[in-house]
Amino acid sequence: MALTTKTAGFPKRKCGVLGCTGSVGQRFSLLLAQHPHFELVAVGASDRSKGKTYREAVNWKQTTSMPLKIGELLVTECKPEHFKDCDIVFSGLDSSVAGDVETEFYLADIPVFSNAKNHRQAPGIPLVVPTVNLSHLDLIPAHRQPGKREKGFIVCNSNCAVIGIVIPLAAIQAKCGVVKQINVFTLQAISGAGYPGVPSSDIIDNVIPYISGEEEKMQPEARKILGGVDVRAKEFLERVDLEVAAKCIRVPVQDGHMAVVQMRFGDRKNVPSVEAVKSALSDYVSEAQILACPSAPEKAITLMAERDRPQPRLDRDADRGYSVSVGQVEKESGALFDMRFTALSHNTIIGAAGSSILNAEAAVIKGFV
Amino acid sequence: MALTTKTAGFPKRKCGVLGCTGSVGQRFSLLLAQHPHFELVAVGASDRSKGKTYREAVNWKQTTSMPLKIGELLVTECKPEHFKDCDIVFSGLDSSVAGDVETEFYLADIPVFSNAKNHRQAPGIPLVVPTVNLSHLDLIPAHRQPGKREKGFIVCNSNCAVIGIVIPLAAIQAKCGVVKQINVFTLQAISGAGYPGVPSSDIIDNVIPYISGEEEKMQPEARKILGGVDVRAKEFLERVDLEVAAKCIRVPVQDGHMAVVQMRFGDRKNVPSVEAVKSALSDYVSEAQILACPSAPEKAITLMAERDRPQPRLDRDADRGYSVSVGQVEKESGALFDMRFTALSHNTIIGAAGSSILNAEAAVIKGFV
Amino acid sequence: MALTTKTAGFPKRKCGVLGCTGSVGQRFSLLLAQHPHFELVAVGASDRSKGKTYREAVNWKQTTSMPLKIGELLVTECKPEHFKDCDIVFSGLDSSVAGDVETEFYLADIPVFSNAKNHRQAPGIPLVVPTVNLSHLDLIPAHRQPGKREKGFIVCNSNCAVIGIVIPLAAIQAKCGVVKQINVFTLQAISGAGYPGVPSSDIIDNVIPYISGEEEKMQPEARKILGGVDVRAKEFLERVDLEVAAKCIRVPVQDGHMAVVQMRFGDRKNVPSVEAVKSALSDYVSEAQILACPSAPEKAITLMAERDRPQPRLDRDADRGYSVSVGQVEKESGALFDMRFTALSHNTIIGAAGSSILNAEAAVIKGFV
Amino acid sequence: MALTTKTAGFPKRKCGVLGCTGSVGQRFSLLLAQHPHFELVAVGASDRSKGKTYREAVNWKQTTSMPLKIGELLVTECKPEHFKDCDIVFSGLDSSVAGDVETEFYLADIPVFSNAKNHRQAPGIPLVVPTVNLSHLDLIPAHRQPGKREKGFIVCNSNCAVIGIVIPLAAIQAKCGVVKQINVFTLQAISGAGYPGVPSSDIIDNVIPYISGEEEKMQPEARKILGGVDVRAKEFLERVDLEVAAKCIRVPVQDGHMAVVQMRFGDRKNVPSVEAVKSALSDYVSEAQILACPSAPEKAITLMAERDRPQPRLDRDADRGYSVSVGQVEKESGALFDMRFTALSHNTIIGAAGSSILNAEAAVIKGFV
Repeated sequence: MALTTKTAGFPKRKCGVLGCTGSVGQRFSLLLAQHPHFELVAVGASDRSKGKTYREAVNWKQTTSMPLKIGELLVTECKPEHFKDCDIVFSGLDSSVAGDVETEFYLADIPVFSNAKNHRQAPGIPLVVPTVNLSHLDLIPAHRQPGKREKGFIVCNSNCAVIGIVIPLAAIQAKCGVVKQINVFTLQAISGAGYPGVPSSDIIDNVIPYISGEEEKMQPEARKILGGVDVRAKEFLERVDLEVAAKCIRVPVQDGHMAVVQMRFGDRKNVPSVEAVKSALSDYVSEAQILACPSAPEKAITLMAERDRPQPRLDRDADRGYSVSVGQVEKESGALFDMRFTALSHNTIIGAAGSSILNAEAAVIKGFV
Repeated sequence: MALTTKTAGFPKRKCGVLGCTGSVGQRFSLLLAQHPHFELVAVGASDRSKGKTYREAVNWKQTTSMPLKIGELLVTECKPEHFKDCDIVFSGLDSSVAGDVETEFYLADIPVFSNAKNHRQAPGIPLVVPTVNLSHLDLIPAHRQPGKREKGFIVCNSNCAVIGIVIPLAAIQAKCGVVKQINVFTLQAISGAGYPGVPSSDIIDNVIPYISGEEEKMQPEARKILGGVDVRAKEFLERVDLEVAAKCIRVPVQDGHMAVVQMRFGDRKNVPSVEAVKSALSDYVSEAQILACPSAPEKAITLMAERDRPQPRLDRDADRGYSVSVGQVEKESGALFDMRFTALSHNTIIGAAGSSILNAEAAVIKGFV
Repeated sequence: MALTTKTAGFPKRKCGVLGCTGSVGQRFSLLLAQHPHFELVAVGASDRSKGKTYREAVNWKQTTSMPLKIGELLVTECKPEHFKDCDIVFSGLDSSVAGDVETEFYLADIPVFSNAKNHRQAPGIPLVVPTVNLSHLDLIPAHRQPGKREKGFIVCNSNCAVIGIVIPLAAIQAKCGVVKQINVFTLQAISGAGYPGVPSSDIIDNVIPYISGEEEKMQPEARKILGGVDVRAKEFLERVDLEVAAKCIRVPVQDGHMAVVQMRFGDRKNVPSVEAVKSALSDYVSEAQILACPSAPEKAITLMAERDRPQPRLDRDADRGYSVSVGQVEKESGALFDMRFTALSHNTIIGAAGSSILNAEAAVIKGFV
Repeated sequence: MALTTKTAGFPKRKCGVLGCTGSVGQRFSLLLAQHPHFELVAVGASDRSKGKTYREAVNWKQTTSMPLKIGELLVTECKPEHFKDCDIVFSGLDSSVAGDVETEFYLADIPVFSNAKNHRQAPGIPLVVPTVNLSHLDLIPAHRQPGKREKGFIVCNSNCAVIGIVIPLAAIQAKCGVVKQINVFTLQAISGAGYPGVPSSDIIDNVIPYISGEEEKMQPEARKILGGVDVRAKEFLERVDLEVAAKCIRVPVQDGHMAVVQMRFGDRKNVPSVEAVKSALSDYVSEAQILACPSAPEKAITLMAERDRPQPRLDRDADRGYSVSVGQVEKESGALFDMRFTALSHNTIIGAAGSSILNAEAAVIKGFV
């Protein structure tokens, strides 16, 4: 857990959090308060909270008590003038306001790492899963529109449910060939719906086979994240050949999204063995690890051998929530798919706030911040 | 709820329950105690309970209090001599003993309706879902081996998770053409594991992506149930062309199995419309209804229009747990499947004890008991 | 369950429901749709729902599907002019608006049976638990202020958590002497908080030792309900000598409030035996039963012998939710209390909507409606 | 969380765990694997596990993955000869065997720190809550029976539900005077029942107002723990004047026991103010902290100001599970008690394994090991 030692030379950066009272904002604040090199200096929220201390403004729902030093920060409105001291701003804003606010910060030349969905599909804006496609950050200079901005940009992290697909797929495709079609079933935690989110009477002793807007995000996000980047042409090269069908279900689990993923390889005559896929998963080393990002997990993927794992309660905290647990790698019984696996990711850490923090660490190391 | 009126002419039959203290056995006992025409007269369990009253022997876990009249029954061992007065015996025995005990009753010329898996794939034994394939009961005379037995036979009900697949499929195939491949994802209630079953620390705030032996049962049971019967040749004609791939997950739900089913039709050039499939589901009338079985649901399938239904807690009790709720009938986004739906069935009623009781009612009407 | 037969002579009454879309309003509507003598003819809600059918306006969350006949009712505003045809109006309104709206109906001479807390402590208004103090209805004529109103009145049912205290206490005091001090711990279901109510992330894998405003209601409501009525003086005689201390806790249970009640009798030298208290509970017959109210339970109190009962999931539906289950009647180990018991009541039936319906039935029989 | 730095001079000790595969045994093993000064070198279990590696023998259910180094330990039988290298042995044995096995180790001159209940009330054996009565360890020399044993002894930790009572009470009595009567209501987590423990169908959407043998332990354990020690007379001086009445309820919470405690002071004419009690709780410093035990929490009691806290999910991990969270310190409304508070403790850390480890650390510092 001691993040400091291995990253002694990492520079200090001052940070702000937009939407600091919401559930993602709370997670951002907690992770930053515990961060060895990022310092939380500014917190923004809606009018209602303006002028209060963070301790007064927030209904703190984390299982770790609020670090003293952030409790005393004064909450401001989410305006760039209140965040001038920040090298980096993290956005946990609700999508109803995130689009405009984040653009305002970008125009004010402040780097924004956002968990909101608004800009994920915007042409020049990187959509980055830190243990998959940090190379997409290379479009930041172009995205700044040289001459217009020197520091500002927006980088989005992905939808929390996409994580369990793209990280294992990146590992598998790197060693075992292209996957063309995937069929995904997700069992998603209630924290994915924010706070107050899902009413308890809807989900205790129940599951809900519907999450508004969720299934539609899977294919476009996966295509962008798993695609390449053409730095010369300043554009992303999406994996338009990749077909993703998804069914998303809400379950009574606090944290941790599960995804059962069935795969059909591009070259069905040379389908890799289960052992080869397991090795690909187990051996995977992401760029976040190579760059020695302070928050990077030791292993981006934790391969599990037990036949009934991964499970949300037991595995969501693997490597502080930054590692995706993958198990049940098996040949498919039917003819339509070649293989399947089950993935489990902490939806508010690697699936949300932690992802943006890792992205920011990489951006610092790469010199973009 | 008043089952009596519509079935005034139905004959009385005396019944016994094997494995009466287990969770399926309790459900059998409760349903029989409330039954207008079946009378529970004998209850059997293991040595440990022998000689006690049912009230003393059982750790009653039903949400309806134990009917007075069955509490006074004396529990016997599961030997045919104690069940001589019974016209019908229902078996809620554990599969570790069900095979031999049921065979003993069959040899003793006593009809057995079983929830156990042991004889489901036996060549001459009907595997019957009452709202799908009551016609399979027609093999009973052959199964008795004329000259050897006059009354005895074994009829099995299906695995509780197969229900959500075969009932909707029977309806769809009857009107919309053959389905060749299905991909199933189940979310199964804890009551499916019996009692004590799943430890609470394994499932609260969690889901478990593994149920021992469950996925393997789907294809063979579906092939037998959805197949025909050749009365002359005295054999079942299985749907060997039907491919069923399944992934089964345990969720923290008391009762009610959910199944998300993706379908690929045999004739992919003439795939029916979503509306046609909805009509097929909504209009479906099973033989159990036509025969006016006392416990038959008004509708074998309850078609739901809301986009977030069916759900276990809200829909498991549809038509006293004898109707399967089906919703989310949608075109598939990917190319591998044509359509999908979500089904919800009460796993201990239509998925277990209730299924056998309906089978027995049909057998009475058809003259086999 | 067949309520009709035993109450053949009961007159028909037309009913309306105020706040029909909320969770208590839904329960009122469902119980009335199933009622043999009350007919639901008018439903009122806020502006937002005005002009829609009930089916369109409501997000139906009951485990019984919506009866067809009520789905077509048109939702109106909660104004007396829309409820002129109603003999009785049931109020499931939120307390933020219930006070004024109910008064308006009262002034318009329409009888109101309310679940809201607003008028519970009003001097002339009966606060009635139907299996405890139906005699309080005798103040209705005075409450009407003769000359001013001929039909209108307001009758309140109690807080859902008070039920588990006052029904057993009424039975015990009737036979075993006065109880002077009680110490109550409640474990309350989430449905008590309405919808959306308690956020799931607050209560899954958790309990919350605080329910706003709940503990303070216990003593005043118990004192009024358990007190007498002076019809001449036209006032209630509260049990001001009764001390009630309470601690209320929210637990992850859908329906069913549990109360552990420690009692200290007035005459500590002649404390009744545990057996005497059990008999008092078991033998208790309430006025609702004597009057043969159609919805009255067979037993107002279901005495349980098992040492681990009552329990919410297993016992909340006793006698359609109209009976209170009481168990664990034991001598107290400490010196401060004499005895304790555990009670379990369905908080949205006998603890809310069902209580008002029983009150209305009694009012009809007594000639007040 | 870094336990090492502050306790640099603490000596190394070799440790063993008895009952290593059970849930308490797993917690012991995990805490020891993470311990800066205790080294886990031997693990014992029943015959069934003998000869397997710990990784093979255990069904690991901790939310932290099994540390590599302990997975390779060979499991032995629980016989002293296999634990000769151990300076300390921790017992997570089931009470059905713990009594005899622990005595055998004691006779073999091996110090045992036990979580089992068997020896808790034995005359010479210390029953120690490390943040309350470490002084009881001073009876160890007498307990060894000089001349008979040089190293061996047994020290018990308390029942997991007693913790939430005695730690706050120790703090309050130290500053605010003697408490004579307490009335306790506990809501206990499922992990308190071990594994498999409570069946899920018994507790999902439910609470169970009965825990076998639990309520009876409260008074005798509290009297011993809160009592003194007469080193000359070599006996414990129990608080026989303390009356403890308790009601214990099982709730669907994974970890964390809640206790609502009502207090009646000895001197009711000089009852302390709520503020004085809060200060006593907040300022409390236990001997474990003064001794600088490596695992000691920064604060033995975490006083909470929010009116709806403590809560199990949010507060059980306070100070790595070694601190008890106390809130809702309030004057009682009734006349029988003076004040009440709500406590929350992690039942498998400070309430079980962690307690024994802290006890062992103190014993090392005090020179008994």
